[in-house]
Amino acid sequence: MDCIFCKTISGEMPSTKVYESANVAGILDIHPTNKGHTLVMPKQHYASLLDASGDLLKELFEGAQKVGAAMIKGLDVKGFNVMVSNGSVAGQLIPHLHVHVIPRTLEDNLQHWPSGRYRENEAEEYAGKIKNAL
Amino acid sequence: MDCIFCKTISGEMPSTKVYESANVAGILDIHPTNKGHTLVMPKQHYASLLDASGDLLKELFEGAQKVGAAMIKGLDVKGFNVMVSNGSVAGQLIPHLHVHVIPRTLEDNLQHWPSGRYRENEAEEYAGKIKNAL
Repeated sequence: MDCIFCKTISGEMPSTKVYESANVAGILDIHPTNKGHTLVMPKQHYASLLDASGDLLKELFEGAQKVGAAMIKGLDVKGFNVMVSNGSVAGQLIPHLHVHVIPRTLEDNLQHWPSGRYRENEAEEYAGKIKNAL
Repeated sequence: MDCIFCKTISGEMPSTKVYESANVAGILDIHPTNKGHTLVMPKQHYASLLDASGDLLKELFEGAQKVGAAMIKGLDVKGFNVMVSNGSVAGQLIPHLHVHVIPRTLEDNLQHWPSGRYRENEAEEYAGKIKNAL
């Protein structure tokens, strides 16, 4: 398969490894938001978060949790973001499921997304649409 | 405990419920980035992602996965972001672990964080600091 993350995991393409468990690997993002930014991903190819089993989700986010804890300890940061972009519309550039773990500092000036408001009854309307599709 | 998410889950404060499993609840964010923006959280109080057991991580991200799938189906969106902000420096406003699930559209114009580069040998240096702290 012509997937750069599959090639990275197989060693066909170079990467800087940070973390490994039975089914999950963590490598540095070569275009880091902040230095140390790590991508935790299944070794097997899954395009989407929606394709992951419960056991894989557990191993994947245990990996993200361990990498985040190691950032706090090893990079002397106070926090981190964990993010999955699912679908190209959400900013997923490589169609191989990966979890971003991004160390954060007070000085990085990263802007969080703006927040809106619901009109009257609109929240219930949206919640209903999601609940009916569960 | 004076935690607004604990009070929301107990029913002491109002919320718009979207999802529920044994130990996890999903409610609409009252300040949505996009409409339908849901917060999936443990019913019990955990301040941080770092405090969650593997089993809780599994249930929490299975919840995020199900809510994301329901957004694609029910809100007619093509993707979603899953995000945890861990620590106030990372934008965590409420110290009760919660997973943002944010539906995405081509028209929402949300900006992703910028990406940087490593100087020579700097990636290995950062990876080493994280690995040594694992």
